[in-house]
Amino acid sequence: MQSYAATPIAPFAIQFDAAAATLSPPGPTLERRMSDLEGLFADRDAWQKAVDGDNPVVYRVQSSPVPEIDRELPQSITTIEPGTTGGELWMTKGHQHPNYQGEIYLALHGTGGLLMFDGDRVEWVTMAPGTIGYIPPGWAHRSINIGDEPYSMLAVYPGGAGHDYNWVLEHGMGNRVYKTPNGFELRPYGGLS
Amino acid sequence: MQSYAATPIAPFAIQFDAAAATLSPPGPTLERRMSDLEGLFADRDAWQKAVDGDNPVVYRVQSSPVPEIDRELPQSITTIEPGTTGGELWMTKGHQHPNYQGEIYLALHGTGGLLMFDGDRVEWVTMAPGTIGYIPPGWAHRSINIGDEPYSMLAVYPGGAGHDYNWVLEHGMGNRVYKTPNGFELRPYGGLS
Repeated sequence: MQSYAATPIAPFAIQFDAAAATLSPPGPTLERRMSDLEGLFADRDAWQKAVDGDNPVVYRVQSSPVPEIDRELPQSITTIEPGTTGGELWMTKGHQHPNYQGEIYLALHGTGGLLMFDGDRVEWVTMAPGTIGYIPPGWAHRSINIGDEPYSMLAVYPGGAGHDYNWVLEHGMGNRVYKTPNGFELRPYGGLS
Repeated sequence: MQSYAATPIAPFAIQFDAAAATLSPPGPTLERRMSDLEGLFADRDAWQKAVDGDNPVVYRVQSSPVPEIDRELPQSITTIEPGTTGGELWMTKGHQHPNYQGEIYLALHGTGGLLMFDGDRVEWVTMAPGTIGYIPPGWAHRSINIGDEPYSMLAVYPGGAGHDYNWVLEHGMGNRVYKTPNGFELRPYGGLS
């Protein structure tokens, strides 16, 4: 497995291949299977069935070598597979930055959504290639694949922001996103499952 | 003139048109004419002659509405016109971040260079569409157009990093970049002009 560069980092070039959704030289990669998304889908039985089945890969994240430490500006590309669990569209776990700082997502392929929640208000940005979603400091964020093909996006974020996944388990994301016959719909959270 | 968004900013979408080199909705724009680049080209006479002539626009910067304040993550697109002054390729003023933080440049059109200087070492990254240049914390940075057409690049930078242009006037950038019959060359600074 590739690892992050040691600091201090010397200036260097990263080849960003939007078509292939890769950053090169590569840094660490991670793969989230259905079993990694425990407690996030409303329909726990459907989730368990998927885990007990082929436990599919829901999304992958490929980082550049720039490390997630204060003062650096790392980047990563996330690719979410198309699919639903109990009707809910496949998504990332979602997280809050414990050190509140802004972040940008740039959609590269497919169609997706950027769901943001500050504990009170919910905001949605539909993402298609060329859309930058701006995530202000203090807003938890999750990506959702709303299409029938993989959805990829580039993230750029301050290295000292951190990732708090438990915030989402505790507070939810305000809305859930379901597939409908003609598209998708957002529904109130209706309790944490 | 467009202005930055007031904080706290609500989540929003920015349309990033790489072909047109625009961010929409637009934030502030700035235009740097030759007269704004005083003290930066080695050949001061050639610079003065250009200023006294049509004082051309050397580069333009178009920002998104995300403001340059701590915890936000603003973006801008810079477009440098092709040209030389005393043989030196047209370039941005260059700056250091007084609050040392990393930054990325993504080349969009044309060919350019990213010159970085930490006061001791000089680094050069040749930029073509798809190249991300990583500027580590503590490295002053300048963009140069090395081609015959406009060179555009997207910058993403922490809003609290700041811009110190005087640092470059005081320390230089380590190298100067000149047009040659077949391309470009880097030469030692040879004293500040």
